[in-house]
Amino acid sequence: MVTLPIPKTLDPLATKTKTMKALVYLEPGKKALQDRPIPQLAATTDAIVRVVKTTICGSDLHILKGDVSTCAPGRILGHEGIGTISEIGSGVTQFHVGDRVIISCISSCGKCDNCRKGMYSHCTTGGWILGNEIDGTQAEYVRIPHADTSLYRIPAGADEEALVLLSDILPTGFECGVLNGKVQPGGTVAIVGAGPVGLAALLTAQFYSPAEIISIDLDDNRLAVASRFGATRTINSTDGKAAEKLMAMTGGRGVDTAIEAVGVPDTFLLCQDIVTPGGTIANIGVHGKKVDLHLERLWSQNITLTTRLVDTVTLPMLLRAVQAKKVDPKRLITHHFTLDQIDEAYTAFGNAAKTNALKVIIDA
Amino acid sequence: MVTLPIPKTLDPLATKTKTMKALVYLEPGKKALQDRPIPQLAATTDAIVRVVKTTICGSDLHILKGDVSTCAPGRILGHEGIGTISEIGSGVTQFHVGDRVIISCISSCGKCDNCRKGMYSHCTTGGWILGNEIDGTQAEYVRIPHADTSLYRIPAGADEEALVLLSDILPTGFECGVLNGKVQPGGTVAIVGAGPVGLAALLTAQFYSPAEIISIDLDDNRLAVASRFGATRTINSTDGKAAEKLMAMTGGRGVDTAIEAVGVPDTFLLCQDIVTPGGTIANIGVHGKKVDLHLERLWSQNITLTTRLVDTVTLPMLLRAVQAKKVDPKRLITHHFTLDQIDEAYTAFGNAAKTNALKVIIDA
Amino acid sequence: MVTLPIPKTLDPLATKTKTMKALVYLEPGKKALQDRPIPQLAATTDAIVRVVKTTICGSDLHILKGDVSTCAPGRILGHEGIGTISEIGSGVTQFHVGDRVIISCISSCGKCDNCRKGMYSHCTTGGWILGNEIDGTQAEYVRIPHADTSLYRIPAGADEEALVLLSDILPTGFECGVLNGKVQPGGTVAIVGAGPVGLAALLTAQFYSPAEIISIDLDDNRLAVASRFGATRTINSTDGKAAEKLMAMTGGRGVDTAIEAVGVPDTFLLCQDIVTPGGTIANIGVHGKKVDLHLERLWSQNITLTTRLVDTVTLPMLLRAVQAKKVDPKRLITHHFTLDQIDEAYTAFGNAAKTNALKVIIDA
Amino acid sequence: MVTLPIPKTLDPLATKTKTMKALVYLEPGKKALQDRPIPQLAATTDAIVRVVKTTICGSDLHILKGDVSTCAPGRILGHEGIGTISEIGSGVTQFHVGDRVIISCISSCGKCDNCRKGMYSHCTTGGWILGNEIDGTQAEYVRIPHADTSLYRIPAGADEEALVLLSDILPTGFECGVLNGKVQPGGTVAIVGAGPVGLAALLTAQFYSPAEIISIDLDDNRLAVASRFGATRTINSTDGKAAEKLMAMTGGRGVDTAIEAVGVPDTFLLCQDIVTPGGTIANIGVHGKKVDLHLERLWSQNITLTTRLVDTVTLPMLLRAVQAKKVDPKRLITHHFTLDQIDEAYTAFGNAAKTNALKVIIDA
Repeated sequence: MVTLPIPKTLDPLATKTKTMKALVYLEPGKKALQDRPIPQLAATTDAIVRVVKTTICGSDLHILKGDVSTCAPGRILGHEGIGTISEIGSGVTQFHVGDRVIISCISSCGKCDNCRKGMYSHCTTGGWILGNEIDGTQAEYVRIPHADTSLYRIPAGADEEALVLLSDILPTGFECGVLNGKVQPGGTVAIVGAGPVGLAALLTAQFYSPAEIISIDLDDNRLAVASRFGATRTINSTDGKAAEKLMAMTGGRGVDTAIEAVGVPDTFLLCQDIVTPGGTIANIGVHGKKVDLHLERLWSQNITLTTRLVDTVTLPMLLRAVQAKKVDPKRLITHHFTLDQIDEAYTAFGNAAKTNALKVIIDA
Repeated sequence: MVTLPIPKTLDPLATKTKTMKALVYLEPGKKALQDRPIPQLAATTDAIVRVVKTTICGSDLHILKGDVSTCAPGRILGHEGIGTISEIGSGVTQFHVGDRVIISCISSCGKCDNCRKGMYSHCTTGGWILGNEIDGTQAEYVRIPHADTSLYRIPAGADEEALVLLSDILPTGFECGVLNGKVQPGGTVAIVGAGPVGLAALLTAQFYSPAEIISIDLDDNRLAVASRFGATRTINSTDGKAAEKLMAMTGGRGVDTAIEAVGVPDTFLLCQDIVTPGGTIANIGVHGKKVDLHLERLWSQNITLTTRLVDTVTLPMLLRAVQAKKVDPKRLITHHFTLDQIDEAYTAFGNAAKTNALKVIIDA
Repeated sequence: MVTLPIPKTLDPLATKTKTMKALVYLEPGKKALQDRPIPQLAATTDAIVRVVKTTICGSDLHILKGDVSTCAPGRILGHEGIGTISEIGSGVTQFHVGDRVIISCISSCGKCDNCRKGMYSHCTTGGWILGNEIDGTQAEYVRIPHADTSLYRIPAGADEEALVLLSDILPTGFECGVLNGKVQPGGTVAIVGAGPVGLAALLTAQFYSPAEIISIDLDDNRLAVASRFGATRTINSTDGKAAEKLMAMTGGRGVDTAIEAVGVPDTFLLCQDIVTPGGTIANIGVHGKKVDLHLERLWSQNITLTTRLVDTVTLPMLLRAVQAKKVDPKRLITHHFTLDQIDEAYTAFGNAAKTNALKVIIDA
Repeated sequence: MVTLPIPKTLDPLATKTKTMKALVYLEPGKKALQDRPIPQLAATTDAIVRVVKTTICGSDLHILKGDVSTCAPGRILGHEGIGTISEIGSGVTQFHVGDRVIISCISSCGKCDNCRKGMYSHCTTGGWILGNEIDGTQAEYVRIPHADTSLYRIPAGADEEALVLLSDILPTGFECGVLNGKVQPGGTVAIVGAGPVGLAALLTAQFYSPAEIISIDLDDNRLAVASRFGATRTINSTDGKAAEKLMAMTGGRGVDTAIEAVGVPDTFLLCQDIVTPGGTIANIGVHGKKVDLHLERLWSQNITLTTRLVDTVTLPMLLRAVQAKKVDPKRLITHHFTLDQIDEAYTAFGNAAKTNALKVIIDA
């Protein structure tokens, strides 16, 4: 029953060219598409993946602002994508060279205590390291540590572009927002923020058939998208009256689940104002500063509040759901670029209010 | 299968005397033992209970400070106790006159949506009303609304004094701290606060056999009590270094469960500093002001934070556990008084640092 | 906070006519539409409901075969329906005369241990008694014990016909099949039996967005209905090869959830043959005899097997889901009759293979 | 963050001697202590463990009877034990040569779908293979596949003999009986069978502080042991009246949890007779033939029935509980032998009714 060693062949192209294009973080505010050496295997459990499609995440913008202290200048950015395995270490048993794979944004060893309880985000030798502590996916090639437990095989005939969204954003909306928020059939959900991650939560919340999904945002265009994606009602919160409006909509009851998908004190406060006794606030937002928690009101309200860095533990389930057409993550894709155009891609993604960009696909 | 009406007889003593002694809240800082009319049935689902033993709760002190806006002057205090049913309304089917009962601090109609999902604390016509919105148990008699679903029969031969602790404090420690905190065999628990409710959490946490229970308090005497009650380690937090000490004790890992049993910003902050990724902060404390929540750190730590007003939904289970000698709530009882001595009882309870009082029993 | 008594007025029509039409079980094989006295309140917690619409259940056929020993000759049949409250006892606080209500097939006192843990089916003074141990709903009027916790208010503007299905069949499929079967997004479900209850499970399984729902039956017509209702695949099991076919469909893996919706040894055996290691067999079927359980194979297969008499504890949630158009129970309705035509209704329902009847609505 | 390769040195003794003593299954009814080659690494993820202590399991007796078709003649028996790592493959990252380890009876790759959901027993390249499909631990050395995820480090200073019981029997009683049986504080538990595995369930059920644990067996000596180990009551079932006695003990209610720890039709039937509505039957027993399941009674009783091959997913938790002195598995050890005396050990273990053997320790 022990798996036999699998022949490992090198990608001839990789061997020949030796260098590749890669988007490199230089210093706060600065990045450049550079020629870099093609990555090499560093451990027997590594794989090298020829990136086929990648995308840009809000976290990449955070890094570029200089907000992510673990990411050093010189780092190749990116933690999402699909590709083809070009080389594997001798300890990789689940994949072969040539396999088409989804790259999880979270590297997981599968062996440490946290991995064994499904909390891959806190893997003691992994977690969110790609495009952060080690070089990432906005390049022609990427080295993936712990390949057996950090890559996922793409089924034959799948729509690969859709699967780029399984690297990070769809599991993030689903795990941090929907699962942690205990969305249930017949329940009432508010999603604060209709950016890409809020919309990913909106798409995946519908797995559980809640009676109401109320999308809240400052931007009418995004709210229109939310309506098309399945929000039953929307609230533009520009006037600061979102809580009053929501309470009126729900007959004064509030929501069973409030999903925070922005990451600033005001939106977190709004969640506290609209959650019903016994309900849940599920935080997805990446917060840059502390927030007020009104325990002088909430101590007696039987509230649950959760935080989570995505584990991507649901990636196989989401893949089955995509294949079964229960969710279409491609609805999040608004723009397409090539790796040569990645500066334009960042511009489009970084100016979403003007460009209406949600997720941009980059062909590497 | 429909229950037949049960003969309802009046308590002859009650009928004769017509008045009773009761401790009345007069204004912030003032209370008095007064003669008051014996309460009458006000609805068919009410019962009148002759109080046999009652006790004082931290909430009573809050009311006396004027902190509880729902409690009007003139209110008879108290929401805990055991007694004998002296009169029942025609709609009461589960009890007879003469039954010995535990009075839940939470009145529950058993019919509203919240009651039907076990969240009695938010009963639309009940919740914490005793000794708050309606007259309470620090008196010779008390009217209990929704008697069928707010009283619990005392088994023959039970140690009744122990059962006074089932009205509020034991379920509070257990439901808000232990259950919400998901205490598990082999887990590590910190309980911040070794007052009565922290100790109730300590006693009931042991139902689940955690590997470590670390009690944290400012008072060495209380920590000594905690050790006797089953804490595996203690930390005196007077020097402001409780977090460092705890992290050292746990090899830098922190705790799976941090139970907040004080209710001030500092102790809540401590919980944030000691909870391990994937862990739970279970708040029991009654907070008077907002607290800082450090989402800039915690957003990625997969934390769950819970609040809860006790539901007493576990009261029957706790009663079975007491009867089976799996927990001895009497360990919380330090002083005894009569109703005539209730001023002394408040003095002893309110000066716990000097008197070492935990729970005081008052014979009514 | 205590609810005040509500004025109780009698239905003038009921008072005048004094008798009503009702379908009475006479002896095995025999029933008759008879004139019977309009029921009277027997306890303060009763309500009398003027039945507006009722239906026939497989259990009614069981009674008529003489298979249900608790149902004595002379009993008015029926445990489903909607209607208008014509009279309430003095202890009823949640409803008024004139309210439109759904009648749960399960009477629940809301007070006993089983009710308080949500297992209404085993209420010590209720459970399935309607049309079984007490007179039922296939009549112009019915007495409902424990009215506050056994009736559910119909929202204004609701499609009442759809709500007849909430009395029993929809919660039965959902609670016994879908919830007990732990149907999950991305999962694989088999439903053995495409009669009304199997189809109710099929409709409500879709709340959880499983990747596959495979419907298995002997009747191609029913399988065609299952396909229209959302089954992703169907298997006609007439040739005895359903297990082989299903294993081929699932790549040899079997299903996460096997729902037994027939109630005979063969279909229960089939569930054992198709459940994957770690999966669940959820029994809905009413079995008349013991079955073989192949523990010599299953002991090591990490299987969960559940049984359940519907509790209708999810009735409020299902009502919200119907109102939110997340499920349309009317798809189960194939025929309409008046109470005068109830014999024809039984004939149509009892010969479903010919008539293609699923649920028949009877206007009372 | 990628782990560096660890120097791998060979055990000089192993290299020198080249052969070892091992207990080999020859044919039904026959076994022999033979000289066998010391096992070699066969995959980079293997470890070779110098066995220090092992034990005998009921499954070993099943193999010797010829009941386990996957175990071929020539196989070295045994799947339990502790030892010292003497050699590791180049892909092993969690252990070093010289580490003291507990050997799980279940080999787990940590990578397949079943392992990633914690169902190691159904690992696609592991599961129960030791001493069954590959050579086992009743020898001086054993090869452990998937070493990183199938071995567990022994803490410094631990009582190693106690930890032999963590290979199989303690997790089996705990996972298959206690966890699957949902043992809860205040609950009532029956354990049918007071052999080693029933006693392991008894010891670990106490993690959850049930109010009653009723042990049922045919042998008064075993029942006396059960009483010493924490059973609150015992029933000798020799007279065939165990169900009546238990129902009398529980006031006609039955038990919340019935744990089957024998594996024959009669004991499984008993569980069906004593489980209360809403309760759970947790099967541990290894059954050789099908059983009757009385669905004609149980269909409406809201019962859950579970089966499970131990996953040893709780081994780390049990280790913490042992270290914290929350359970003492050494109470199960009755006899000690050396590997040379292993025939006597089998005789003692196989004749438990006479020898009162529970678990026997063999020093290898």
